[in-house]
Amino acid sequence: MGLTDITIGIDIGGTNTAIGFIDFNGKLLMSDSIPTLGNEDIEKFIMRLHSKIISILDQFHNQYNLAGIGVAAPNANYFTGLIETPANLSWRNINFVELMKYYFKVPTVIINDADAAAIGEYMYGQAKGIKNFIEITLGTGLGCGIFVDGNILLGKDGLAGEFGHAIVEPYGRQCNCGRKGCLETYVSAGGLRRTVYNLLSYYIEFSNLRDIPFNQLTSEIIYQHALKGDSICLRAFDYTGQVLGKSLANISLCFSPEAIILFGGLANSDDLLLKPTIHHFEKSLLNIFQNKIRILKSSLQDGKAAVLGAGSLILKEIPSSKSGLVNKNYEIE
Amino acid sequence: MGLTDITIGIDIGGTNTAIGFIDFNGKLLMSDSIPTLGNEDIEKFIMRLHSKIISILDQFHNQYNLAGIGVAAPNANYFTGLIETPANLSWRNINFVELMKYYFKVPTVIINDADAAAIGEYMYGQAKGIKNFIEITLGTGLGCGIFVDGNILLGKDGLAGEFGHAIVEPYGRQCNCGRKGCLETYVSAGGLRRTVYNLLSYYIEFSNLRDIPFNQLTSEIIYQHALKGDSICLRAFDYTGQVLGKSLANISLCFSPEAIILFGGLANSDDLLLKPTIHHFEKSLLNIFQNKIRILKSSLQDGKAAVLGAGSLILKEIPSSKSGLVNKNYEIE
Repeated sequence: MGLTDITIGIDIGGTNTAIGFIDFNGKLLMSDSIPTLGNEDIEKFIMRLHSKIISILDQFHNQYNLAGIGVAAPNANYFTGLIETPANLSWRNINFVELMKYYFKVPTVIINDADAAAIGEYMYGQAKGIKNFIEITLGTGLGCGIFVDGNILLGKDGLAGEFGHAIVEPYGRQCNCGRKGCLETYVSAGGLRRTVYNLLSYYIEFSNLRDIPFNQLTSEIIYQHALKGDSICLRAFDYTGQVLGKSLANISLCFSPEAIILFGGLANSDDLLLKPTIHHFEKSLLNIFQNKIRILKSSLQDGKAAVLGAGSLILKEIPSSKSGLVNKNYEIE
Repeated sequence: MGLTDITIGIDIGGTNTAIGFIDFNGKLLMSDSIPTLGNEDIEKFIMRLHSKIISILDQFHNQYNLAGIGVAAPNANYFTGLIETPANLSWRNINFVELMKYYFKVPTVIINDADAAAIGEYMYGQAKGIKNFIEITLGTGLGCGIFVDGNILLGKDGLAGEFGHAIVEPYGRQCNCGRKGCLETYVSAGGLRRTVYNLLSYYIEFSNLRDIPFNQLTSEIIYQHALKGDSICLRAFDYTGQVLGKSLANISLCFSPEAIILFGGLANSDDLLLKPTIHHFEKSLLNIFQNKIRILKSSLQDGKAAVLGAGSLILKEIPSSKSGLVNKNYEIE
């Protein structure tokens, strides 16, 4: 039996790092993960990653030939290969691509995690056929990948799309980027939690969340209690949608996109978040944009979009992969 | 003597409409203008424009062959040819390109005035060789033309770059778009005037501007008094730069541009505006962007940038103009 060429897509999140094995037709063959442990030394992290990947390849009796690796990470830079001062990891200005090539000996590219999710969405998800769209990833923070005329927007130095750090509230909530009032301090899993605590401080009404310490509170818990009608939780989703909707209205008039796609844990709260977001989005939009821009929930599974996007991206740099994905008219400039 | 092929670039402003005659090498041969009279019927406007252009061509004993017209106008749409509900003109959803073709019988394109200025800047000005930049035009309102990888960003429906209507102050100043707190109500000639009046209401200090009625106040008067040390005028420029700098910091992290270029009347106030703008821009930027993005004053003359940009744009649609500008690696998608 001949070897099957594959790529690996890796998505480094604040908590977990997802790993996907992808064939040259873009099919996800299997996936796994390791904890990220963002305070750990970077080389230790790569060694753990290496062990995990080697052990999986071994399980399949080496029937797969690893042709390349695409990595998605926060504040990753496609042009330099660096991970630059990611807000939720302790690594600083690491040349991740160089390190990966040293350990894996295969072509490797890195891209911002939200950009990878946007590429995944464009190739496999809601954004198929949509050349101008904005992907918003709602996880620990808020990421943003932007497609302009069918290409991912990287900007001069590969750092475009840091919309999560747009200041939406001057003198607002403290952000781990060192500034105040960034969008992601309101709109993200962490932001939702902060909103709940703020609402608990402001209102006197009953809430089951008054029994849960801040550090144990998750967006999943808030979601579950919102479904049960907890008014603090409902208010929290409404407020989150309000901040998100208004911010998306501001970014939309810069880009004039066809769609905005919400991805990640918080996006799975469906109407709880989508409804207030769309309401405040339309209400805040300049008239010429009203009722033109769709806000959609991603159709990709959590932890898959960025893995697929990153895994697809590296195919572009492997000459032998000329069939498959590269035919799908996807280009990165 | 043979006929010389030319294009005409037209820039429809809130007050005046600039007209430029441009040869196929992009050289501005001559320029003129007519008052816009934005409350006038659109056909009357086009007839006045037509008379003016014909009379100029006549003066030159018809040595010029008019090959095409490029028009820059507020809220103009390259894809549809429409001028859609411009905030500072009474025309509503006019198919301007169709009307122009009817009167002039030559190929005609239309584009947003700030996009035209950005194209002019890219071909003739500060942005030569800069593929990712943002052009901010400061006139009656605030316009924005954005270059991404060497192309003007139009977005899904040609309306990208309406950054002047980003809401920067919730419940802020009333805007003639019907909403409140838009950037251009603070940062524009009109915004500066409103800021002066606000400061006159807040402070008790002496100012020569206390003797000037609102309707007679211009940004030029404010500039002149600022030069003479009028503290209200100095504060007004400082505040304008503060709002602009903070807003540019927010848009920059979406686009990661190499430069931001300020164009138009207010930009000519040089350091009075540039200094506070740059100060608050750098102070507000996410760390990874600091000291990377230049804020520059346009090197193009007022009333020339958009005329040149629009006049160059139409060359793309004239097959016989294959030499000249189209070689300069400028493409519109």
